[in-house]
Amino acid sequence: MKKNRIQIFDTTLRDGEQVPGCKLNTKEKVRIAKKLEVLGVDVIEAGFPTSSPGDYKSVQEICKSISQTVVCALSRAIEKDIEMAGLALKYAKRPRIHTGIGTSNCHIRYKFNSTPEKIIEQAVYAVKYAKKYVEDVEFYAEDAGRTENEFLAKVCENVIKHGATVINIPDTTGYCLPEEYGSKIHFLKENVKGIHKIILSTHCHNDLGLATANSLAGIINGAEQVECTINGIGERAGNTSLEEIVMIIKQNSHLNLFTNINTKLISSTSYLVSECTGMKVQANKAIVGINAFSHSSGIHQDGIIKKRETYESINPEDVGINQSSIVLTARSGRAALAYRYKKLGYFLNKNSLDLIYSIFLKYADKKKEITDMELKIILKKANLNGKNNKILHTNTNSSSRRINVV
Amino acid sequence: MKKNRIQIFDTTLRDGEQVPGCKLNTKEKVRIAKKLEVLGVDVIEAGFPTSSPGDYKSVQEICKSISQTVVCALSRAIEKDIEMAGLALKYAKRPRIHTGIGTSNCHIRYKFNSTPEKIIEQAVYAVKYAKKYVEDVEFYAEDAGRTENEFLAKVCENVIKHGATVINIPDTTGYCLPEEYGSKIHFLKENVKGIHKIILSTHCHNDLGLATANSLAGIINGAEQVECTINGIGERAGNTSLEEIVMIIKQNSHLNLFTNINTKLISSTSYLVSECTGMKVQANKAIVGINAFSHSSGIHQDGIIKKRETYESINPEDVGINQSSIVLTARSGRAALAYRYKKLGYFLNKNSLDLIYSIFLKYADKKKEITDMELKIILKKANLNGKNNKILHTNTNSSSRRINVV
Repeated sequence: MKKNRIQIFDTTLRDGEQVPGCKLNTKEKVRIAKKLEVLGVDVIEAGFPTSSPGDYKSVQEICKSISQTVVCALSRAIEKDIEMAGLALKYAKRPRIHTGIGTSNCHIRYKFNSTPEKIIEQAVYAVKYAKKYVEDVEFYAEDAGRTENEFLAKVCENVIKHGATVINIPDTTGYCLPEEYGSKIHFLKENVKGIHKIILSTHCHNDLGLATANSLAGIINGAEQVECTINGIGERAGNTSLEEIVMIIKQNSHLNLFTNINTKLISSTSYLVSECTGMKVQANKAIVGINAFSHSSGIHQDGIIKKRETYESINPEDVGINQSSIVLTARSGRAALAYRYKKLGYFLNKNSLDLIYSIFLKYADKKKEITDMELKIILKKANLNGKNNKILHTNTNSSSRRINVV
Repeated sequence: MKKNRIQIFDTTLRDGEQVPGCKLNTKEKVRIAKKLEVLGVDVIEAGFPTSSPGDYKSVQEICKSISQTVVCALSRAIEKDIEMAGLALKYAKRPRIHTGIGTSNCHIRYKFNSTPEKIIEQAVYAVKYAKKYVEDVEFYAEDAGRTENEFLAKVCENVIKHGATVINIPDTTGYCLPEEYGSKIHFLKENVKGIHKIILSTHCHNDLGLATANSLAGIINGAEQVECTINGIGERAGNTSLEEIVMIIKQNSHLNLFTNINTKLISSTSYLVSECTGMKVQANKAIVGINAFSHSSGIHQDGIIKKRETYESINPEDVGINQSSIVLTARSGRAALAYRYKKLGYFLNKNSLDLIYSIFLKYADKKKEITDMELKIILKKANLNGKNNKILHTNTNSSSRRINVV
């Protein structure tokens, strides 16, 4: 069965950057944009040119440095914004303007003090105006997550009629549950005239921890593009993590989907973005956290040493990490201890391992992690290292099932 | 319609703690356990007593300090482990032993070098043995996420027959997609004899960023307990975040579910766990990250100032945070700038705001965040503060719609 391609729209440099504590200069933005192109994203959202002269310049410089990938600039449904976006994109080989307006009752009433009819008028006007600058116009229906499906469909139908090439359905406040967001995409696919001529896009926020699951529900129900950021950075609790949605697609062939991402570059891209933005990635962040492929509990370490797949469903090499790590803590067992000693060149038999394990636990109960240096100190303390060489041997041909009784 | 209660099983002190870089001493564990009891969790998994003397002692001390909440201790399906768990729980008012064994083909074959029949035998033996120590025995079918449903059902049926009171269905490697995990729970609810006598529990890992969505799929399909940790800490990419699943339940009344959690204590509990474990929470972590209720882009700030709900679906007060914050960066607009000046006692008219905004952007393009001190410097630079008092006025009774044209 032919697989369908999901386009990856990276908004690290726009939605990702609009975050307290994060500020990238033009040079850093260009560096990240180039890396995103090598990573294989389909669209780079480079910025919001009207927001500041610095951002305008960054978008312009990114356009000059990107050769194949679509470069996109954000604007509100306001002439001045669209003009600025169009001008900033002048040097792009494949420019896209991303324009739109809030469509939920809450936004229409409280943010715009407007009416549904006027919102559709403004949406159509914005798309037509953007078309004067570029052929590729993406429309966002802000707060679509809380917009009634019927009205949302009406908005979509109108902007398609006037030339929108992509429609973005943002769950702006991270409000939806996966079933709800998936149904919304399904509804639009079924009820909007012309929807099959355009690309339907997901854009989910992580306020309830569901951005990735919502994006997944979106593509299962027919969306063809996912908007996301490296490390999931972005306003408030951030956006869908590129690394998560891409690896979900890669790991689940039954979805019959694929992306153009070179997953082996995920780890280095994550590192670059974290370094440049100063936005630290927590240790237990999926796929790119420092602990994502680390094992410290005895039960897991024992399994991993026997066969990696027992406790890892993703191969770390697939995301550019050389190997899983076996970290020694008070929750580690004999298998991990023997494994780490073996790496240092010491092969312990059962008796010596038992003795050393009891000393190890006393150390480990007081400390977070036991290093190679401390393993050597423990060995000295056990007084095995000369006194009784018989219980330290170098035979690796043991046929024993468990590595901890070599 | 009567709402069903979802029990919250917190495993911060067991699965959360078995992480490289994290090590809690007994005093810290007792402090966290007491906080969890006040927070309102139903079960505290206190540790894995057989793993080290320190952990044994911690479980024992936690039992002495907890008055109402169930205290649970982990064990493998091994006599020695179960004995240690039983002994460590001696002082608990409501003790539970959590025992179990791997049930997936991968675990049976590579980890245990065993057969499905022997695994069932060992599972039943472990439950019966644990029953000698406590009435409340929870069984985990490790790697249930990759276990065939028919065999999993058989394992469940057998352990229920021999007295298991709770059955835990862990997606140990974070392998499942939400629909798959939900279907698994549904299958067990429909096909296991006696399943309605016991509590069915979810235990999901976040390797693909789906732990919360999978837990949600589990409870929608009939699971009655969620195993989770504060801040989502845990082995590799961590566990389901308590704060996420609890707030999803609270925000979505149509699910007809509730928990006993006092959500106003979520923020302080998160802080305590982060401080004690040294496991930092990233800025964009849902609900408990420092940016979770911060706004820096102009579009969002303008909306939030007009009405909080435009860009926040969760009320920060519900999780114990006083208010949303408006942070000034190069992505901020005039509305936010005027708002922050107003907080400092300066009321700007349109002309003065326009002038100051252009100076502000030059500063902001170079910096991450503009502070109150810098706002005062900008004001001085604009030379408004005496030279022309007419454009700085203090009239707050303006009927204008936009806060930035007072």
